[in-house]
Parts: sequence; C-alpha cells; structure tokens
Amino acid sequence: MKKKKSDSNAKKRNIIVGQSGGPTSAINSSLAGVYKTAHERGFHTIYGMLNGIQGLLDEQYVDLSTQIHSDMDIELLKRTPSAFLGSCRYKLPEIHEDLEIYEKIFAILDKLEIEAFIYIGGNDSMDTIKKLSDYAIVKGHKQKFLGVPKTIDNDLALTDHTPGFGSAAKYIAASTKEIIRDALGFSYHKKSISILEVMGRNAGWLTGATALARTEECDGPDLIYLPEITFDIDKFLETVKELMEKKDTIIIAVSEGIKIADGRYVCELSGGADYVDAFGHRQLQGTASYLAGFLCSQLGCKTRSIEFSTLQRSASHMASRVDIDEAFMVGGAAVKSADEGDTGKMIVIDRIADDPYMSSAGVYDVHRIANNEKFVPREWVNEEGNYITDEFINYIEPLIQGDYQPFIVNGLPQHLVLKR
Amino acid sequence: MKKKKSDSNAKKRNIIVGQSGGPTSAINSSLAGVYKTAHERGFHTIYGMLNGIQGLLDEQYVDLSTQIHSDMDIELLKRTPSAFLGSCRYKLPEIHEDLEIYEKIFAILDKLEIEAFIYIGGNDSMDTIKKLSDYAIVKGHKQKFLGVPKTIDNDLALTDHTPGFGSAAKYIAASTKEIIRDALGFSYHKKSISILEVMGRNAGWLTGATALARTEECDGPDLIYLPEITFDIDKFLETVKELMEKKDTIIIAVSEGIKIADGRYVCELSGGADYVDAFGHRQLQGTASYLAGFLCSQLGCKTRSIEFSTLQRSASHMASRVDIDEAFMVGGAAVKSADEGDTGKMIVIDRIADDPYMSSAGVYDVHRIANNEKFVPREWVNEEGNYITDEFINYIEPLIQGDYQPFIVNGLPQHLVLKR
Repeated sequence: MKKKKSDSNAKKRNIIVGQSGGPTSAINSSLAGVYKTAHERGFHTIYGMLNGIQGLLDEQYVDLSTQIHSDMDIELLKRTPSAFLGSCRYKLPEIHEDLEIYEKIFAILDKLEIEAFIYIGGNDSMDTIKKLSDYAIVKGHKQKFLGVPKTIDNDLALTDHTPGFGSAAKYIAASTKEIIRDALGFSYHKKSISILEVMGRNAGWLTGATALARTEECDGPDLIYLPEITFDIDKFLETVKELMEKKDTIIIAVSEGIKIADGRYVCELSGGADYVDAFGHRQLQGTASYLAGFLCSQLGCKTRSIEFSTLQRSASHMASRVDIDEAFMVGGAAVKSADEGDTGKMIVIDRIADDPYMSSAGVYDVHRIANNEKFVPREWVNEEGNYITDEFINYIEPLIQGDYQPFIVNGLPQHLVLKR
Repeated sequence: MKKKKSDSNAKKRNIIVGQSGGPTSAINSSLAGVYKTAHERGFHTIYGMLNGIQGLLDEQYVDLSTQIHSDMDIELLKRTPSAFLGSCRYKLPEIHEDLEIYEKIFAILDKLEIEAFIYIGGNDSMDTIKKLSDYAIVKGHKQKFLGVPKTIDNDLALTDHTPGFGSAAKYIAASTKEIIRDALGFSYHKKSISILEVMGRNAGWLTGATALARTEECDGPDLIYLPEITFDIDKFLETVKELMEKKDTIIIAVSEGIKIADGRYVCELSGGADYVDAFGHRQLQGTASYLAGFLCSQLGCKTRSIEFSTLQRSASHMASRVDIDEAFMVGGAAVKSADEGDTGKMIVIDRIADDPYMSSAGVYDVHRIANNEKFVPREWVNEEGNYITDEFINYIEPLIQGDYQPFIVNGLPQHLVLKR
C-alpha cells in the first residue's frame, strides 16, 4: 500500500466504517475502497464497527490495520462475499423517541475521536445516516456521516444502480443459461417447465436480469414476472398452455415477491414460510415451488422449481468486474466526500455513457434518498406484463461485464476473514 | 485440428457416440475427447446420436463435423454443461424380452456403417453397453461397444471416481464456503441454522464434498449426513441442541436421500414430491426444507434450507480442470480401445498417485460394473455418523483442483449448442 501522509503534530483524525443489511458480493469491495482511501488521505486509525450500528452500541469494533496488511489483502477483501465486519438489521428509533441511544452512539464516537462515519448499506442504512447526521447538526457534533449504497435489489433512488446488483445479475444470468442447458438435455419427447425464483421483494430488477440469458446460443427464459405487475394466475395458466403448444422446454422466471390482485403474495397461497425481519419485512420463499405444483396439477407435465437462494447475493466467484470496481469507487468517494466536509450524503453512481459504458461517483443529500424504493418502470415491461423490454437489457448489460478471478487456494476461492 | 489419417481405398469406418442419464459439467468434455480421437484415428464419419439410444431408435443423429469446426469449438464444448447431443433415460429391455428392438438398433448401425458405438453415461448406460455388446457377440455383429463413465454421483464401481464428480464437488464446496460467509454475516446476537441439500440418492460422495469447505479461513459444515447411514431424527435433534450451546451459526449438509430406520426417506415425512423416473428411481426433494421446519419448531431459532438443485450438475463455470481433463481422456480412451478391438468394456480412471496426483485410463469388462453402486465406505464416516474422515478428504481433494475458465462473451459464459 502507498504510504499514508503523516504529520505527527496534527490532531487525531480517525474514521469508522460499518456494514449493514443483506450481504452482497460487492459490499466488501466498498469496505476495501473506504480503507484504501482513508489510509491514503492520512486518517490515523481506521475502525471497523462489528455488525454495524448494533455492534457499535455494544462497543464492538476493530482497528482495521490489524486485519488488512497488504495490497494483496485488499484484493482478497474485494473477492470476499458477505459482510467482512458482520452485518445487522437494526433500525434506529426516531430522534425524539429515544435520545439516549443517540447520546450513547456519539459518546462512543467521541471516545474514539471519530471524524467521519461511513455506513455501507441499503435503504434502511441510509435512514441511519440521515438520522445520525441530523442529530449531529442539531446537537453541534462535528462528525461527518456518509452513506455508501449497497443492495443486490437495485431499489435505491437517485443512483443509476447499486453496487452488488451487477454481480448478482451476472450470477443469475449465467446460472439461468446453465439451468436452461440442463433442462434442454431431456427435452426429447418430453415437455417440462422450470420455474426459477429470484430475490427482490418489491422491485423486479434481478428477476429481469434472467433475460440476459437470451444470447445468440440460448433462448433465455420464456416468461418473466416482476413484483411491480399484479400477478394473474388464470392468465398465467393460459399463457403457459399456449406456449406449451409451441415449445417442449419452458423456462419461467418469477420474483419471490409477486402478488395477486387481493394483495396476497403468491408464496402465501401455499401457506408457506411467513417470517418477519427486524425492519418488518416479510421473508418470502416458495413462490416457484407453489407455481410448479399448480402447473403440474393443471397441465400434468413435469415441472421443477429452482430457488437461487442466498447464493445469488454471495456468489462472489461469479462477480462482475464493473460492479466490484464501482463498489470500490463509491467506498473511496465517501471518504473523500467526508474528508472535504460533506455530511448527510450518500454516494451515488452516475452513468456517464452507455457505449462505451462509463460511470462516476456523485454525492446526493441522503434526505432525498432514504426509504424511497426504485421500481422497474412500467414501460420497461412488455404490454402483457410477462417479459422485459430492450431498454431494460440496455440498462443492465454494461453492469455484468468483466470478472474478478477468485484467488484459488487448493481448488477453492479464498476469502479474507475477520481475526478476533 | 490435426488432419486425420485418410485412405480413400479403405472401407468406411464410422463411429457413433451418444450421451445418457443426468447432465454433468464434464459429459461434453468426454464427447469432445471421443470426437478428437476418432478424428485423429481416421474414422470417416463421426455420428452423434441425439438423445441417446432413444433418439437413435427414431433414427435421430447428426454428423458431428457439421457441429464442430475447429479446435476452438472443441474447447467450447469442454466448457458447455449438460448433454450437447441431448440425453435420455431409456432402459433397454432384456434381450430375450424384446429381440425386435435389438434388431432395429443393429439395422440402423449397419445402415450407417458403424464400427464403434460409444455411450457416455452412468450405471444404467453401462447396462445398455453390456446388453448391446452381448447381443452383438451372440448374433455375430462386428460393432464394438464401449462405455464412458459419467455421473456426478461417483457411484460407479471399479473406477477410482467418475468424470463429472470433481466439478460438482468443486461447485458444491465453493458454494458452501460462500453460503457460510453469508450466514456468518448475521450471527450477532442471533442463532441460525442453515441446512444444505445435496444430490446423491444412495451414495453420499457429493454430500461429503461439502467438507472441502473446511479450509484455513472457514470452519466448513458442522454436521454432514450421508444416505449410507440410517438417519435418526431424535439423535439429530440432540446433536444440534448440543452444538447450539457452543456455536451461533450452524451449517448442516444432508443428502437428498437420507432415510430413517423404517426405510422412509426424510423428504417423504413432509408428504413432499414423489416422482418416479423411467429407471424407477424416485425423485427426491425437500429433505432440507423438512428438517429446517422440524428444527425451527423444536428449537425456535431461525432456520433456512438451501437446495443446490440442478446447478450442482450443470455449473460448468465452476468446473474442475482435473475433472474436465479426465473426462476428455476417458472419451478418447474409449475410441482407442474400440479401435484396437475391445468391446463390452467401460473405460475407468485409475489413480496412479496421490501426491502429486496422477491418473490414467484403464479398461474394464462392463459385466463387472453395470448396476453395482459404489458407496462411501463406513470407515470414511466418523463413529457418530455425522461427519466424514480425513481419508475421504484425501481421496476427493485432488479431484477439484484447477479450473477451466469459461469463454466469456458479453459478460456471460458461452456454450456450444447443437445446430439442427
């Protein structure tokens, strides 16, 4: 690593970084970007809070220089999925509801002589940045609070897309191609329907990414159902019936979050899992399985359901180079922004050009971002509501380009792991 | 490609190759090996039967020179999952039960002037080779019949291991590492149990492969249950309870085929899927999901189930170089063997040495192989029946080494696809 600027007479300038929300393949690349830039900009101690704000409240943190010893470690961190520092799902109360918790957080930050607080996460994490920066301004605390976007769901407003999305999209598209090849192997004198279940509670960005499997040597999925469009199970059955007259092997991608007209999730129709997380989000599972059973009973042909499960957010062995590099960039940009005096901001990715693709980091007021979900625009879905348009493909295609070869040790990808 | 030996005065020497049974990441590498060696040994037309013996009976075949045009195509074929020629699950009747079907097959082979018949598949496919070679000998037909092993399940007797197994094991081990990282991200003040379901109806080779995830920076799974050992659900609950007192994040790998003492599959306990294929094999699914529900109800902690599903047999983007190279080798060795006059044989992989690992192709009488399943030896499982031993690891580790980088086009692995 380049030697950091040092000035032994300067007052201590420490920085702390945390990770929150669901894991992705890119969240540690943002952490690497924060670390490298903070190091180069002369911050003294670079702390990592363990398990985000929840761990910080228990004074759980590490000096990251005890964990990252070389440029090689930084590269390894970029190739490590899930949250290196541990994550949490912890929602700060409104300031007026519980002053004490805010006082506790700031007492810890003061004790550690923190100048900048960087939080890598999704919508809920940006809400944390908003509240902490508001509180600091109102109470006259000097710390700067910056958010770094992260979510495979791509549902954050104002940023062109979110770090983590491209790698998840690439894994899903590549796996969809492989699943289609697998399904076609048995297509002789046999009809079959495969239903792929993709993450995305309310936003269909990842489900739409299955369409990337439509390439010169692969048809891709035949039907794609996003949560933005009300799911009509009778129409669905009719569409599949018609398709079966033309094709033997049918591939259908569905979001875990598709709902029928009365507002119920499709996965609820089977009386399936019903677990609510700390943010009040219902955990969804079983959509594909329910629909596979439904089609099997109605059409009598072989059906199977495949859930991409947690692998779609943690398969860093199939990461997109564009995604990992952008995640690194926004991490670094957050440190730069805080170092230059910004607070209450989130770093966003601005798309400069499509062909050749170029992007840069921008800075937005987090008040404009927090808790606004970004959905797939209706005009990027076809009229029938069962496939996406070329505009969607053009938007997503640059984000899955390039790869980050894993560091293979003894046949398997190696990860950087926290040493306690 | 090297120019084939040609002799325009020689009688026509044609060869036909087919693929059968479940897809793997390596079955097309064997096809590539057959093609390249047949080409180099001067066979005139190299036919591919479409969808195995079932397609052949309908006279469905292609001249492979219309499909494979260059060494680049051969390399692409090695990187393409599932059966390039299409597969089937078709069991030939006993010779005395249906002479007509045998006469039909040999009429087709005679018409195509076939000298050698190569069949790439698992136990059931070796049964086909046995019957066809027996029939040929009895009836005085000159064709040679050779089997090339293929199965992710590694349950074929006499061969040290099967092509396809190493790549599936590598994918499962790498994904297990990623799933564990994902699970650990949320371990703060929370207990969770993840149950991974792995293919392998009767043999636990692939389930045991999850133990490869135990590396210097990863604990690997905590418990591993193979189908060779009767599953005791009360003992299972006790073991998990004890483990939860020591650990917050528990990872359990189970074979889809584990059974309780009365002979029922665990997945049957939930009244789950019950589909029987053409070979009379029951399709198993839902073991992990059943156990996750059971532990959740008994222990009240967060549980989740993950099925590796069809990706474990078709994720060629995570193939093992050793596996793909050996699959290529046995394909070529089958052609060589037939060309030298063998029939009714299967090519096997002999392990020459462990460190450094070396293997070579051997030739065995298919009568000794067909329909004998190879199980994990009891002494390779620990006394409690819930983990594997170092001997198992030492056996499997060489088989996942090295990679075959996919040919990436526009961000996604490219495949070679049959042109009709």
